Amino acid sequence: MPTDDFFADVLAANEAYVARFDRAGLTGRAAKGLAVLTCIDSRIDPLAALGLVAGDAKILRNAGARVTDDVLRTLVLASHLLGVDRVMVMAHTDCRMVGESDARVHEAIRASGGPDTRSILFQVTSDPEGTLAEDVQRIRSSPYLEGLRVGGFLYDVETGRLTRRC
Amino acid sequence: MPTDDFFADVLAANEAYVARFDRAGLTGRAAKGLAVLTCIDSRIDPLAALGLVAGDAKILRNAGARVTDDVLRTLVLASHLLGVDRVMVMAHTDCRMVGESDARVHEAIRASGGPDTRSILFQVTSDPEGTLAEDVQRIRSSPYLEGLRVGGFLYDVETGRLTRRC
Repeated sequence: MPTDDFFADVLAANEAYVARFDRAGLTGRAAKGLAVLTCIDSRIDPLAALGLVAGDAKILRNAGARVTDDVLRTLVLASHLLGVDRVMVMAHTDCRMVGESDARVHEAIRASGGPDTRSILFQVTSDPEGTLAEDVQRIRSSPYLEGLRVGGFLYDVETGRLTRRC
Repeated sequence: MPTDDFFADVLAANEAYVARFDRAGLTGRAAKGLAVLTCIDSRIDPLAALGLVAGDAKILRNAGARVTDDVLRTLVLASHLLGVDRVMVMAHTDCRMVGESDARVHEAIRASGGPDTRSILFQVTSDPEGTLAEDVQRIRSSPYLEGLRVGGFLYDVETGRLTRRC
């Protein structure tokens, strides 16, 4: 195994977690029947924000909480095999994926010394409410996800408050 | 706004979270320079397992902790604009995405009363160690992610212990 120490801090913290671990015996099914799709944003702790503990819910996260093909693949598994019957799509305030355009993000990466990323579709949106509604609909319209309850929510990173949007 | 009550329990829990919220003023940058890709499995609380708090790290989650195009898109943003310089790919024991084949999962969904999902690539693996190594390499080899430190880890859902694998 690699012996670099780039991850020594989190591995040491994990030792302390193991010492007080009390979650043995849970199964892979979501006890509360819930899946939550949210953004990777470091300010969001979805379990804490929703009063959940390990065992309760499936958490999906990507840049912007977007309903990509990867998310649909994941929700099909979660709903048919892992006990999920309701889904929250949870966008948030001050998201880096909300802005003028992908072009501006490509420029920002170049300006920071990064590579030319223009072959990548980042899926930046200038209309976060409209995008959230479209993403929720993308789940509702999937022929593989009939019967799932789906809601669109906005999380405020300054207050911790979650608001239903669609 | 919808007035159904499918999400009343988590919205009520969120009210309590807001009342004690103490994370105002954080930015979207990952304070510990860390991104963690893990599975949606309900037994994994990645922040707690790694001794992290809101603000520290970007968390990415999909079925199987697989390095999909959606994950690469997300890591490019995280590394060039949001302060990430190291990535943990964190598979886990007892994962529904480890098994004989996609075909068996399609059969299981049909057997549970679900639809014919054979047009979907679930990316089930029968060799989780090999798949983890390939997924780690997929990040290391990306021309958009040069300089990122990447490690592959296995999380034991029965003990909470994280082990470096590659």
